[in-house]
Amino acid sequence: MSGEGIIRFIGIVDEAGEVSVIKIFPKYLKGLRGITDFSHLIIIYWFDRRDTTSYRETLVVMPRMHRAKEMVGVFASRSPSRPNPLGLCVVELVKVESDKLYVKELDALEGTPIVDVKPYIPNADALLDARIPEWASQD
Amino acid sequence: MSGEGIIRFIGIVDEAGEVSVIKIFPKYLKGLRGITDFSHLIIIYWFDRRDTTSYRETLVVMPRMHRAKEMVGVFASRSPSRPNPLGLCVVELVKVESDKLYVKELDALEGTPIVDVKPYIPNADALLDARIPEWASQD
Repeated sequence: MSGEGIIRFIGIVDEAGEVSVIKIFPKYLKGLRGITDFSHLIIIYWFDRRDTTSYRETLVVMPRMHRAKEMVGVFASRSPSRPNPLGLCVVELVKVESDKLYVKELDALEGTPIVDVKPYIPNADALLDARIPEWASQD
Repeated sequence: MSGEGIIRFIGIVDEAGEVSVIKIFPKYLKGLRGITDFSHLIIIYWFDRRDTTSYRETLVVMPRMHRAKEMVGVFASRSPSRPNPLGLCVVELVKVESDKLYVKELDALEGTPIVDVKPYIPNADALLDARIPEWASQD
């Protein structure tokens, strides 16, 4: 079995910075109801600049800005080059103003399409003691 | 601006249970290199049973199995009914045997297509003190 699915972009990164602004497209705005009850969100976005055959066929990478000494598989890395160019980032929700989400810590460039927004739920999503290799720890 | 992207399934949930088995398709196996260095993974999967126009047009839901007393937006919920039927789950990686990942805590049914596998990195992904509404806290 294999197969495909269609992603429809629900918004866009309108400004990227210390506080980034995500603009949600009008037809999806009702989906934001109650979102300010959560302090943090999971943003899934589309690495549109990596949506090419070559990047999507990349299966091993040398992690940038890390201490890796050998190639690692893309599924063992957060590289934007991967079979499906999905990025994932946990952000702090600062405020919502009509169609705009103001968030901190979003690691996505201006113009990046947004694929999904999910509430961050520590009970399921937070694991402080997860083990990682040395190359993946930040300096 | 709006637009679409194509998702290509990289694997499938081969068995669902206390320990679930994810089978990665042969052409993507090289992407697993180094994955056992991580104790936990983020699995992104496709809610294939919700990939219909009606489910994808759902923007507010009454959260099941929770104490919600009113409808919430799908972006403030982890509902499988949402514009893009992507599920996200943090799992413990028990072992890898050739094309099979054995994982705990995967909340996906047998036959569910897998979209992406990412390493869980506490520095970026773990936030124990994120605030959530009362309806979203588990009993």
